[in-house]
Amino acid sequence: MADKITRFQPSGSRTVSRVDAFVLDLAREAGVSIESICGGSGRCGKCKVAITAGEQRLSRMNDNERMSLSEEEMETGLRLACQAQVVSEGDITIDVPEGSRRGLHRLLASGIEPAIPLSPAISKVLLKIPPATLKDIRADDDRLLEMLNAEAAVMANIAPGIHQRIPNALREKSWVATVTLYRKEELIGIDPGDTTKEILGVAVDVGTTKVVAYLLDLVTGDTIGTESKPNPQIPFGEDVMSRITYAMTNDDGLAKLQQAVIGAVNALIRQLCDNVGKSPIDILELIMVGNTAMHHMFFGIPPIHLASAPYAPAVRKSISVEPNHLGIDIYPFGKVGSLPNIAGFVGADAVAVLLSSGLYDDDKIGMMIDIGTNTEIIAGSRDGLISCSCASGPAFEGAHIKHGMRAATGAIERVWMDASEKDVRVRTVDDVPPRGICGSGIVDAVSEMFRCGIISASGKINSSSEWPGRIREGPDGKLEFVLVAQEGKGEGERDVSVTQHDVQEIQLAKAAIFTGVSTLLRKLGLRSSDLSCIYAAGAFGTYVDASSAISIGMYPDIPPERIRFVGNAAGSGARMALKSVEARRLADELSRKVEYIELASEEDFQSEFAKAMFLPHRELDRFPTVARAIGQAADR
Amino acid sequence: MADKITRFQPSGSRTVSRVDAFVLDLAREAGVSIESICGGSGRCGKCKVAITAGEQRLSRMNDNERMSLSEEEMETGLRLACQAQVVSEGDITIDVPEGSRRGLHRLLASGIEPAIPLSPAISKVLLKIPPATLKDIRADDDRLLEMLNAEAAVMANIAPGIHQRIPNALREKSWVATVTLYRKEELIGIDPGDTTKEILGVAVDVGTTKVVAYLLDLVTGDTIGTESKPNPQIPFGEDVMSRITYAMTNDDGLAKLQQAVIGAVNALIRQLCDNVGKSPIDILELIMVGNTAMHHMFFGIPPIHLASAPYAPAVRKSISVEPNHLGIDIYPFGKVGSLPNIAGFVGADAVAVLLSSGLYDDDKIGMMIDIGTNTEIIAGSRDGLISCSCASGPAFEGAHIKHGMRAATGAIERVWMDASEKDVRVRTVDDVPPRGICGSGIVDAVSEMFRCGIISASGKINSSSEWPGRIREGPDGKLEFVLVAQEGKGEGERDVSVTQHDVQEIQLAKAAIFTGVSTLLRKLGLRSSDLSCIYAAGAFGTYVDASSAISIGMYPDIPPERIRFVGNAAGSGARMALKSVEARRLADELSRKVEYIELASEEDFQSEFAKAMFLPHRELDRFPTVARAIGQAADR
Repeated sequence: MADKITRFQPSGSRTVSRVDAFVLDLAREAGVSIESICGGSGRCGKCKVAITAGEQRLSRMNDNERMSLSEEEMETGLRLACQAQVVSEGDITIDVPEGSRRGLHRLLASGIEPAIPLSPAISKVLLKIPPATLKDIRADDDRLLEMLNAEAAVMANIAPGIHQRIPNALREKSWVATVTLYRKEELIGIDPGDTTKEILGVAVDVGTTKVVAYLLDLVTGDTIGTESKPNPQIPFGEDVMSRITYAMTNDDGLAKLQQAVIGAVNALIRQLCDNVGKSPIDILELIMVGNTAMHHMFFGIPPIHLASAPYAPAVRKSISVEPNHLGIDIYPFGKVGSLPNIAGFVGADAVAVLLSSGLYDDDKIGMMIDIGTNTEIIAGSRDGLISCSCASGPAFEGAHIKHGMRAATGAIERVWMDASEKDVRVRTVDDVPPRGICGSGIVDAVSEMFRCGIISASGKINSSSEWPGRIREGPDGKLEFVLVAQEGKGEGERDVSVTQHDVQEIQLAKAAIFTGVSTLLRKLGLRSSDLSCIYAAGAFGTYVDASSAISIGMYPDIPPERIRFVGNAAGSGARMALKSVEARRLADELSRKVEYIELASEEDFQSEFAKAMFLPHRELDRFPTVARAIGQAADR
Repeated sequence: MADKITRFQPSGSRTVSRVDAFVLDLAREAGVSIESICGGSGRCGKCKVAITAGEQRLSRMNDNERMSLSEEEMETGLRLACQAQVVSEGDITIDVPEGSRRGLHRLLASGIEPAIPLSPAISKVLLKIPPATLKDIRADDDRLLEMLNAEAAVMANIAPGIHQRIPNALREKSWVATVTLYRKEELIGIDPGDTTKEILGVAVDVGTTKVVAYLLDLVTGDTIGTESKPNPQIPFGEDVMSRITYAMTNDDGLAKLQQAVIGAVNALIRQLCDNVGKSPIDILELIMVGNTAMHHMFFGIPPIHLASAPYAPAVRKSISVEPNHLGIDIYPFGKVGSLPNIAGFVGADAVAVLLSSGLYDDDKIGMMIDIGTNTEIIAGSRDGLISCSCASGPAFEGAHIKHGMRAATGAIERVWMDASEKDVRVRTVDDVPPRGICGSGIVDAVSEMFRCGIISASGKINSSSEWPGRIREGPDGKLEFVLVAQEGKGEGERDVSVTQHDVQEIQLAKAAIFTGVSTLLRKLGLRSSDLSCIYAAGAFGTYVDASSAISIGMYPDIPPERIRFVGNAAGSGARMALKSVEARRLADELSRKVEYIELASEEDFQSEFAKAMFLPHRELDRFPTVARAIGQAADR
């Protein structure tokens, strides 16, 4: 059997190299899920794979493949899995690139987390203490701290509130006790007996729309639970600005916003603890990240000055407070900390993404893009980093889009069009009939509509396009393109279309992001092609198709394989900080060092933005690959 | 006139040197209050003064003076003010020793406080901060801390809870703000504008029976108010042991004791603030002292292990906590601290007394005695200090004494007897008819009864003493000595007598103290006469007559002028700590360095105690001066 195996990387899954089978079929047999929308017809070009061994056992490249693959891709050995067919027996090894892996995105949701040495701020030390006798009349605190110093070389202060517990804790288990230390300098707990195997922490990513909490075992470093819920501040305002306005214009507005998010975090903590049979009081530290406004509201810091120039945050440095200060229901003498912010609109979440991306340590220039209502971008390398924030708006979360929705069941998440066949194929989350379209779907749709000539470079829907029944006048009197016609097919089912207004929303959003990208590149004196890597973070950044994002001019024009999906990297960074004081030290250093560029202060901001409104850009030479593809499409 | 002036030191008061006048008369004319009980008859010997200039203008020493003064006293130029008479015109300078100054004791009640350089833990810095602009987009915290470092060379962390206040405080008075620092390392407050002249602190001495609070202006160092009230823990137990028992045997016993004392402190703070038109929120720091049990209860630390061997305190080191931890109503981000303890029965109050006495810095060996229900003794010099605690009981506070009372109006505070005239003279607090007898009165009484042969060296009342009407059988069938017979004279008036049981109580109390004194002297390899000084602290220690205390064998046999009254030195030490971090550093160092001797562990404790029960002592050679006086009295 050993001479007839097809192996898929990086998963290592394998199956028999059956002659006549297509690679896509073998992948399905091996349990490897490869992206494909056109049903294996060789037209959508999504199922690219790299043949790393045994390419002579496959069919030769056909015309479909030559249409879908760039010259560079062909040179590096890429094939379409639905077209490459096994022609002779033998071993084949196939590498499935990130961009072709279906399901990868879901795996990425909890974020990629570099392995780091475990050095949590919270540690425990077991002590056997000589009992108090008439020959040794030292006070309990002296006795304890001297033993701690002798056993663990730690000189600690006893935290307020702990003194009360010492006398009984020492004597309850015959002078065997476990002390809990914060940063090996503050004694924040003492338990009778040995509790050194019980150190739990929680990392929280407070997003504008969603709060995610991770429960970590800080003895092993393992994440032992993840829970999330919508940010309960949403009723106070969907985006950050409207919440800041609420805080400014309502009595106790800030207090209400704070209570809302603290309540959600407490609920998540309870749920996480219930899942593993622990109590919230077992949680010794919580680290939160969030954008600067979420950070300020979490800690009850007035966010109002974030709303107007110069958008100065009240607090940049990392914070550590007592849980009771905030009403966080964990061990009352534990700690609630944050990562530092960088600027008013580049917050602790961006620092966390930076931390988990590793960009700060790269030799070559890269870029981290965390797309949200505000999109934070950090560019550079170990030699220096600059950052900015772009008001990209909520379109990518489905807001302000006619049939927009979040990436939930039934949301169109992939769109592919065949200009010659006038065919439109969509894929939905969980493969159920379409209920609407989410961010990655709308980006695909705009990209495909542009590629197929349905919209012009200025974004205008072309009424003369010949897509029978798909281009029509909407209720607003403007044209719209019907992706899915299913009116009256069943309850809750409806047409899903992309309107002229939707296209414009996407143009505004992508122009905002690209203006940030291009400004940072200009500051660094670089061109797009100089970027060795883009770390695409956040849910949308992970789900969006890299090629589509480049095609519409949202991401700079670089080979799509240079785009790495890092998932909820903010959550990853928060977990890293929880697990490692070294990561925190690094975060503090990064937050000080990353230069912040206020885009609105840049002289050419307006003109750059206006040019970026075009698909992919007013200056086509900035998107040579896209320009070439448009040329090819026009030629056909 | 300049050649006819009599000047009294150390007050500097003066009057005309009138020929034929007695010094005691001139003192009264000059407003100098000199002790005298016998009405100027030259017999009580209390009005000793030193003639430091112009002694040739006074009458020669007469027999009365020779009877009352020791040879040493005569050699050093002491006279009796009621006997020394001006015989010729001219300048005279008279020094009134502490022991002869009446009213000095009341002045001393608030304690002697060495002048120390002002360096409170709480300080304020006025900052003019460059406003945030698009050219200078630093975060508020960076902006503030960088300015603080530039202006005051302070690298501070922002305390939890203060971040919230920064943005508005900076902007309210156009970027002029005052920051409040704790130990120049923690930023605990920020106010708009200039508030640098407003720094208030409170020092509290939590005594077993009384709580005294001092309001200090920490800009000037002045004490601007003093208030006291009974310790509301008294209903839970009169002495420390019974309160510890209450804490051990009642649910929430400790919490109730803590709430009681915290409530009293809060009430005192409100009163102090009301008096000067301030609010408790203006108080930025509170420093408490108290014995170890009071300290533990104040901070909610279980005191139960103080009740049994080896009497280890839970906490020796100084503490600093947030006011909210304890429910202390001051500035919520301020601090509530304590001085350190030394041992289970040598507490922060003893450290405070040590601090204010200056004993730790003396070249020569001295001793500090702080008499209370527990009496703390510290002996040594700058070369080293040792300490112990004596269970002296509450007799000196009037408890367990038949007609005992606190040193309130009507309490007999001085007693003098004339053996030849069978005369008894008493003085009461506020010079009203006697209502009872306080500690200093009963010590005087026992001393005089012993000197006059009414009681034997073993303390037994001698039924054969010929004091007509004064020695009688009491209701318990035992003898008692009537100091004041006033039965039926008026409502509330009654005889005041000293019973056999009273004498025994005083013997027990003084034996406890002297056992401590002699044990420490033995440890130091010294005799009583080697002591250069005794600092007598506390209310009783200040009021008691030094000669009487030596005569009964409570204090070691040293010249009475070596006994210095330091009043409520615990309160003084607390105020010093409030005013100076250097004083706190010193206190921490002292508490570490002062060796503690557990008397009960000493082999010869029982025999030493038994010998000390005698008046003045079983081994008379330890009290040579007293022995000589007894001999002289017996000769007469």
